[in-house]
Order: sequence, then C-alpha cells, then structure tokens
Amino acid sequence: MPTVSTRGMQMPASPIRKLVPYAESAKKKGIKVYHLNIGQPDIKTPEVALQAIRNYDGKVIEYSHSAGNESYRRALAANYTKLGIEVNHNQILITTGGSEAVLFALFSCLNPGDEIIIPEPFYTNYNAFALTANVVVKPITSNIKDGFALPPISDFEKVITPRTKAIMVCNPNNPTGYLYSKEELYQLRELVLKHDLFLFADEVYREFCYGGNEHFSVMKLEGLEQHAIMMDSVSKRYSECGVRIGALVTRNEGIIQAALKYAQARLSPPSLGQVVGEASLQTPPDYFKEVYDEYINRRDFVIDALNKIPGVFAPKPKGAFYAIVSLPIDDSDKFCQWLLEDFNYKNQTVMLAPASGFYATAGLGKNEVRIAYVLKTEDLRNAVECLAEALKVYPGLK
Amino acid sequence: MPTVSTRGMQMPASPIRKLVPYAESAKKKGIKVYHLNIGQPDIKTPEVALQAIRNYDGKVIEYSHSAGNESYRRALAANYTKLGIEVNHNQILITTGGSEAVLFALFSCLNPGDEIIIPEPFYTNYNAFALTANVVVKPITSNIKDGFALPPISDFEKVITPRTKAIMVCNPNNPTGYLYSKEELYQLRELVLKHDLFLFADEVYREFCYGGNEHFSVMKLEGLEQHAIMMDSVSKRYSECGVRIGALVTRNEGIIQAALKYAQARLSPPSLGQVVGEASLQTPPDYFKEVYDEYINRRDFVIDALNKIPGVFAPKPKGAFYAIVSLPIDDSDKFCQWLLEDFNYKNQTVMLAPASGFYATAGLGKNEVRIAYVLKTEDLRNAVECLAEALKVYPGLK
Repeated sequence: MPTVSTRGMQMPASPIRKLVPYAESAKKKGIKVYHLNIGQPDIKTPEVALQAIRNYDGKVIEYSHSAGNESYRRALAANYTKLGIEVNHNQILITTGGSEAVLFALFSCLNPGDEIIIPEPFYTNYNAFALTANVVVKPITSNIKDGFALPPISDFEKVITPRTKAIMVCNPNNPTGYLYSKEELYQLRELVLKHDLFLFADEVYREFCYGGNEHFSVMKLEGLEQHAIMMDSVSKRYSECGVRIGALVTRNEGIIQAALKYAQARLSPPSLGQVVGEASLQTPPDYFKEVYDEYINRRDFVIDALNKIPGVFAPKPKGAFYAIVSLPIDDSDKFCQWLLEDFNYKNQTVMLAPASGFYATAGLGKNEVRIAYVLKTEDLRNAVECLAEALKVYPGLK
Repeated sequence: MPTVSTRGMQMPASPIRKLVPYAESAKKKGIKVYHLNIGQPDIKTPEVALQAIRNYDGKVIEYSHSAGNESYRRALAANYTKLGIEVNHNQILITTGGSEAVLFALFSCLNPGDEIIIPEPFYTNYNAFALTANVVVKPITSNIKDGFALPPISDFEKVITPRTKAIMVCNPNNPTGYLYSKEELYQLRELVLKHDLFLFADEVYREFCYGGNEHFSVMKLEGLEQHAIMMDSVSKRYSECGVRIGALVTRNEGIIQAALKYAQARLSPPSLGQVVGEASLQTPPDYFKEVYDEYINRRDFVIDALNKIPGVFAPKPKGAFYAIVSLPIDDSDKFCQWLLEDFNYKNQTVMLAPASGFYATAGLGKNEVRIAYVLKTEDLRNAVECLAEALKVYPGLK
C-alpha cells in the first residue's frame, strides 16, 4: 500500500479543528457553546452584494481572465487610489481568497529552502502555506505586555541569513489585534531596503481600526515599489468569506508576471465571487459605520469584562476583531478542551482558540488564548461569564 | 531590488497565452478569429443551476466546511454510486476546481523530488502543478498513429525508479480525445500493484464518450482502494467553468486526511459555486442528450473535414471535445502565430493550440496542434476552411 507523503503528514492540523469533536459532543449534551474561536463574522453581507448575485443574468458561467475580470480590477484600483494606495489594474491579481494571494507571493518570491521572517504569534495558516511552498518561517516573538507591538529591529537583524528573502506582517493583526504604526512600518522599510528583502503585508482587516488609529499600508512606503506586496480579501470587509475572493497587489512587475503564471495554471478565480466582490465596492458608507460601531462596542465590552477576571490580562486591540488573552492556566490546549469536555455553567460553555497554535516557537502561548469578538454583546457577556466561572474551578490553575 | 524566485521564472507560460496578443491584433484589424484553442464550451449552463444562484437566499455568504458542504458531498456520493462508483461523502473532498484536486493529490502523495509518470501529450497545466509541488514528471510518449492509445506497459517499466510514486491519466483525454479502455486500465492496475504506486485519474470529461464507448473509472478497479484517486470537476459537465468547483475522490483515508489539511489551510472552497454544483446534480437527462448530440455532430463534422485536407491527419476522438491533429508544417508554434499575424481568408482566421506545449519531451508535437471543437458546426466549417486555405500558402510547409 503506497503511503501518504511526508509533507502531507507534517501539514499542521488547525489547533481549533482538534477541538471540533469536543464542541460537537457538548452540543449533543444540550450545552450551548459560544464560539469565540473563529473569524466567521455574524455581520450581514451588504445588500448590494447579495442583490448582484440574485440578479446574475449570465447564460454560461465562464472562466474569467486568470488575473480576474478587468472591470473588477479597474474598480478595485480606483478604490485603492481613493485610500491613497495609487495602483493600476495591471498591478492587481484577483486571487481565490487572501489565502491564494499569500501562496502566490511565496511561490513567486521565495525558492524552496528560502526564509521568511514573521512576528509571532501569527495567523496559523501562514505556517501551512510556508510548508506548501517549502519555505522556512523564522519567527520573531512579540509580547503581550506591550500589546504585541513590532519587536525591535535588532531582533529581526539577528535572524537574517543569506536565505532570508522576505518579511511578513499582518496589519491589523490576526491573532493579536495590534495595528502597526507608521513609525514601525518605516522601521521595516529601512530594514528591507538595507537587506534587499520583500515586504509582505496581509491587510485584509484594513477597515477595522479603532480609537482614531489610522491604517497605514505598506503600499504607501516610498522607495518600496519593488519590495512591497499587499495581500487583500473581501472576506471580512464585507462579511462574505465564502466567495473566496482576494487580491495580490504590487508595483513589482516581475512578481505580477510570475504570480500570473501560477494564476494561469489554475485558470481563473471564482467568477460568481468576482460578481459579488465588484458589487461590494458600491457598499454604502452607512454599512461600514454600523459594522464599525458594532465592533468597537464589542471590543470595549469584551476587553473590559476580561480584564476584570482575576489573573486575566487582555491588551486592548487597535484593529481587526481578535485579541490574545493571557489566562492563569497551565496549558491552553488542555484548558480549551476541558471547557468543552468537562465544564459547563448554566448549561453553557465557550470555545476558544489555544494561542500555542499561533506561535512557531515551541512552548510559547501556553497560557494564552485567542478570542474573536464576532458575536453580539449579549452573547459575549454570557461567554465571558462562562470563562470567569471556568477559571474558578479549572483543575490546572496556575 | 529583490528578485523573483527561480521557480517563479521557470513556471511555464501557457503556450496559448503567447498567442493572445496576436489574436488581439488580428481582431483589431477587423479579422474574425475562430477560437479552436480553448476549452471554454459555448453550451449553456443548465437552467436549474442558474436558478439556484438567482434564488440564493443567504444573508451572510459564509465559509463552507473545508471539505465542502456535507449536503453536496452526500448528493455527489449518491451520484457516483449511481454510476457504479461506490463511495461515501467522507471519501470526497470538494476542491476549488479540478486544478486544486490535482494539486492536493500531488502534495498529499508525493514528496519534493518524487516522480509521477504521465502519458504525453498531456494537459499542459499538469506541468505547472508538478513544478508547484516540486515533483518530477516522467513522460511516456503516446502516438497519433494509434489515436494516442495507452503506450505499452514496458515503456512505463523503463522509467520507474525508486522515486516513482504515481501514474496519472486523463480519461477521456485532454488534449487527445482518447478514451482508455477497460483493458488498458486493468494493465495499469497490475502495474501500480506491482510497484506499489498511486494511480491518479482526471475524469472530468467522463460524460463525453462517443460512439457507444463507455467510460470506465479507476475507482472501479478492484484492489486499488488504497491506490486510486479520481479528480473531478463540474466545469465541463455542466458548462460552468467559472464556479471553480471540483472534487478529489479516494477510498484511501490517509490521503483524505492529508488533503484535508491543505483544504483547511485555504479555509473553504467557493460557497456560491457549491450551491451551483449541488443544484447541477438535478440537471435533467435531456440536457446531456442535447449536449451529447451537439458534440458528436461537431466531432464527426470537424474530424471528417480535417482529414479531407491534403497532408492532414486527425484520429477520431472517442471522448472529451479535443483532438490532436497532425499538419504538414515545420513548427506548430510558428504556424499558429503566423495564422494570427500574417494570414486571413475572407477576413477570417483560426486560433489553434500548438501541440508542443502538451509534450514534456522537447521537440515532440512540432507538426501537431490541438483543437477544441467547442464551436457550433457553422463556425467549425469556416474555421476548417481557413485552415485548409492557410495550408496552401504557409511558407513553412513540409
């Protein structure tokens, strides 16, 4: 019997997936589970996007251009330009979700064995994409004490080798909710120019910046025209994760050419998703105002409530809709499983993502979890109450 | 300035893409171009599929399960079972097009540097996927004289090494239109059992079998439960290429587990495409009858007409909607460009795919082109007439 590839066996299973069967058993026992573990927002997709799909009048659902429909790329370029990111439609490649944009960037810029530096904790799937592309992730540890700010540039310098080809940031950050400042991004600018590296920025949470903080795109860093690559996605912006539409944006023509070859091999990004994505650009400002107000209320509520629990610390996120929370526990993997398997409070419990899965350095994140505040405040209240009660009785308290 | 990866530069550009600018200039000059170069059918998508999308009533376009919606996988399993391919929904992974099914199979079964044997000419993008997965394609040459039948098993034996992990066939075949017989597939069965290899079969043209020939799936080969992997797609079956929905089907649980990890990394296949795919399973038999009749007419017409041109030979395809045609020319790349750049007949010309791009062995296919008979008979008539006239005046005749 032929065996599965070694790389197939090494692919990390999502740390949340391991918990899914426990969540399912809890539900079977009649326990209400509050899902703070996932980034599937409960916000409605804009009506203009849903209408576009209901009004679809094609007779043949055809392939699009491999780089995505030109009309969509032009509209997207106009939209970016409005945000101060001056690009044209030839500098945009529509991808199958932001995921594919990351993969295309890795394949186009790094060879097997090359290295990419990413501040940790980071989005778990970067690891999976790095394994897929056969490249090496070098983590730089950021710290909960300063809210997961950019680590000192000297930390980056320490791990740079001749194989280092790129630095990657997610801004605003999943899983930390940290928003990199203009100053921090200028520090990265100096670094990538000094060592001739690419700078990847996953900016899919661009619109989710709170408390007067403004998002600053890597595409605005002058002198990085050949270095900067932005990954984008409609998933969270318009609450339409299922359409699988993202974008790779760069002024480096060589990268666009290389990425286009990968794009041609898979023929076309989803055509119906592009219809939705293009229509979503017409979303009225009210929609974003409502979403913004909702998230800022949720954030303020959940962070305050968490910090009131003895032994719990949650820095206030400036962006996205995630937070890393430190808990007075021995092991977040065990704790998250225990919450689903052995605990309930008033027939309710909470599902959290163990933070260990967001660190590449073994042993880190053991007393941290990631929460996604994608539930309405009432549910967040119950979820935090469950967590507080759980921490009173969890046998692995520290 | 940082440079694009070596692998990014090595990715083959599609042989057709090189011709696109020439086709565009021809059109600008007012020349009508008949596209026999692409597999985008002009057949309508089934009404039941279009209705499903117009009736979409979701409020949030959410991620689906990473393996695809369970309801869709169950319906698909029932459909396969009806065809004699007995599988359950846990043996199916919904992918983003057939392309992703091939990629997932390569990643899950082969390590970097491992080898896969594929009869050539083969679908060009297999090369791109192999490069993406960092695996080596070992071609076995099939021949136009016997209509591109399976090469002798001894030819396969000659290239098997300790790094060989899989054999791949496309059945019915793109680009040759050949349909492998049950006997040929049993020969492959013996071979993969003897050498403990995986057997990949791209069966996306399953319904397109002509002249009383029946399709025989690798999933029906007994004793290959752990070896056989079928790749499927809704693209051609229902003329809905743009939905990007395919499937990886295997009874080997290890492969499903490994592929699922790759699937989880990219979160979900397109949700709207799955709505269309699931609805398409309700397509009435009439639809297929009509499509079948249309294609068989087109095939009969185009192959007869081609074989009447002096020096031209086209074996009659038994499946799919492609044919490889040999022409009395020096170089099909030059000829296909010349057709667009320097030739027209009554202000018309034809775009063909040079067959060299479908061979991995350098130098093969230079006097062959691939045609896709995806146009209506009237257009095929004009296209073949153009080709006949072109062959009277082409300066590189042999």
